[in-house]
Amino acid sequence: MARILTGIQSSGRPHLGNILGAILPAIELSKNPQNESFFFIADLHSLTSLKDGVQRAEYVRAIASTWLAFGFDFRQNTFWRQSRVQEHTELAWYLSCFTPFPMLANATSFKEKSEKLADVNAGLFTYPVLQAADILLYDANIIPVGKDQKQHLEMTKDIASRFNQLAGEDILVLPEPKIDERIMTIPGIDGQKMSKSYHNYIDIFLPENELKKITKKILSDSKGLDDPKDPDGDITFKLYSLVASDDEIAAMRSNYVNGGYGYGHAKQALYECILQKFEEPRRIFNYYMENNDELEKILTEGEEKARQIARHTIGKVRSVLGFSS
Amino acid sequence: MARILTGIQSSGRPHLGNILGAILPAIELSKNPQNESFFFIADLHSLTSLKDGVQRAEYVRAIASTWLAFGFDFRQNTFWRQSRVQEHTELAWYLSCFTPFPMLANATSFKEKSEKLADVNAGLFTYPVLQAADILLYDANIIPVGKDQKQHLEMTKDIASRFNQLAGEDILVLPEPKIDERIMTIPGIDGQKMSKSYHNYIDIFLPENELKKITKKILSDSKGLDDPKDPDGDITFKLYSLVASDDEIAAMRSNYVNGGYGYGHAKQALYECILQKFEEPRRIFNYYMENNDELEKILTEGEEKARQIARHTIGKVRSVLGFSS
Repeated sequence: MARILTGIQSSGRPHLGNILGAILPAIELSKNPQNESFFFIADLHSLTSLKDGVQRAEYVRAIASTWLAFGFDFRQNTFWRQSRVQEHTELAWYLSCFTPFPMLANATSFKEKSEKLADVNAGLFTYPVLQAADILLYDANIIPVGKDQKQHLEMTKDIASRFNQLAGEDILVLPEPKIDERIMTIPGIDGQKMSKSYHNYIDIFLPENELKKITKKILSDSKGLDDPKDPDGDITFKLYSLVASDDEIAAMRSNYVNGGYGYGHAKQALYECILQKFEEPRRIFNYYMENNDELEKILTEGEEKARQIARHTIGKVRSVLGFSS
Repeated sequence: MARILTGIQSSGRPHLGNILGAILPAIELSKNPQNESFFFIADLHSLTSLKDGVQRAEYVRAIASTWLAFGFDFRQNTFWRQSRVQEHTELAWYLSCFTPFPMLANATSFKEKSEKLADVNAGLFTYPVLQAADILLYDANIIPVGKDQKQHLEMTKDIASRFNQLAGEDILVLPEPKIDERIMTIPGIDGQKMSKSYHNYIDIFLPENELKKITKKILSDSKGLDDPKDPDGDITFKLYSLVASDDEIAAMRSNYVNGGYGYGHAKQALYECILQKFEEPRRIFNYYMENNDELEKILTEGEEKARQIARHTIGKVRSVLGFSS
């Protein structure tokens, strides 16, 4: 039985890149009866970048609704908001005392920001430690992550080893990253990696007219309607390939190559394909966004489950460190 | 009504310097009915330097027993172990996202260690943020501190102001340091400031023979028994002056000046004076050290009180940040 843990920061509504790159693969893994899945909304992490409380609360609801919209089985698995399980920050403190300062200072995620240190808050500096706590609290074995997070997983293992060495036994379970190369290949409407911070994302839960507007903004070259086009160099085609069926993709490919098919047609086809493919998730998403009490009930139940596991781990850690009675 | 907050790290048994410099003045302040006193054992902080859990647990009991030994009224005031109120680490995380990295990097306490960065853990780097949480959770107005902690108090005020600015109202109470100059002037047996880290401290709770041994080790010059001696330049006399009555001090002063009175006599007098002055505290200290259940009961009750106040504050903070339902 493998314990798989996934967390998503509540720093925005989930977009197509998050859904295809992280949420759907995680839900797929969770359907394997050999696995036990732990999914949490990393709302504490979101505070490193997002200060607005009203926005955060909306994003938390949107992320939870998205997981439910795509059929995540919250009864079979564990589903919670990080901020509701106080053991996350408690363990983060303990672990921070086993984390050498240079390990954090040398992290690529920190170095990238080191030219503008005045804008870096202490949370942003120490967040790999909170991340280590997120993972180690639940004895998670497998962590699906993008390549950019691999270093943080190494840090988690290093910190856990230091703690285990003091304890003289393997109290904390060392996790393994599961790198999914696909995570890197979902383009935004400008061709860069789809990301909230690049403002190039497609929010599939938007009302129809807004969704249509976004697809119309996808970057394309200046070829005219009649010109033959290169499907493999075009962003609309790439996005279409990620959501359409094989037959649909083959049909669009020949339209591109033959000419007489404009980018406007392709964008309209992508728009319609998104609406059709995600019809049911859009319905469920909107349902939960409008029925907050129901969402709250599901999350509260999940938090009770998460807390029990977290308390068990923290109990062992406290005992080693002399914090128990 | 002023709220006075004092925390002592459980990184050692309290020594004469801690008792005279921090504990007794704090207990004195707590007796003023205008004040409400909050005293906590900063066991989370101790993890930055002390990893041994068995030692930590003993030091926590010793600190709690010391406060009770000197008559701290735990019913009238609030008395708890930091690690038992999870809101400390939770608030520390929130505050860390309002703490600019350079504020911590420029702290004198960190700079002093920056030559041996590999030995500095992340907890040691961020501990001023946990300290800010310790203070701000309880709306404490007045914090009695040594001069060396003044900068950290300024950081607490700065962090709280940043949070209040976001909130648009004064959610967190800005504390004021109360610098007691005396804190700096208690010498250890080698004449430097008495400190656990200098190994020059007097543990007044030691068994008599061990206490006697320590007082014999107090540094003195090489003057012989018959020589007149300078009381104001002698460590034994300084220590005696801190515990003896005015009459006893005057008598020892004239003994020094007149000659025919050796340092051995002075050390014996100091030893006897400590035993006599602290007879009752030594008895109570030993009682609680041997009756752990009773100590545990007192602390658990205190933690219930502390938690209620902490939860009230954290509730307001969570609401601002969008972490409440």
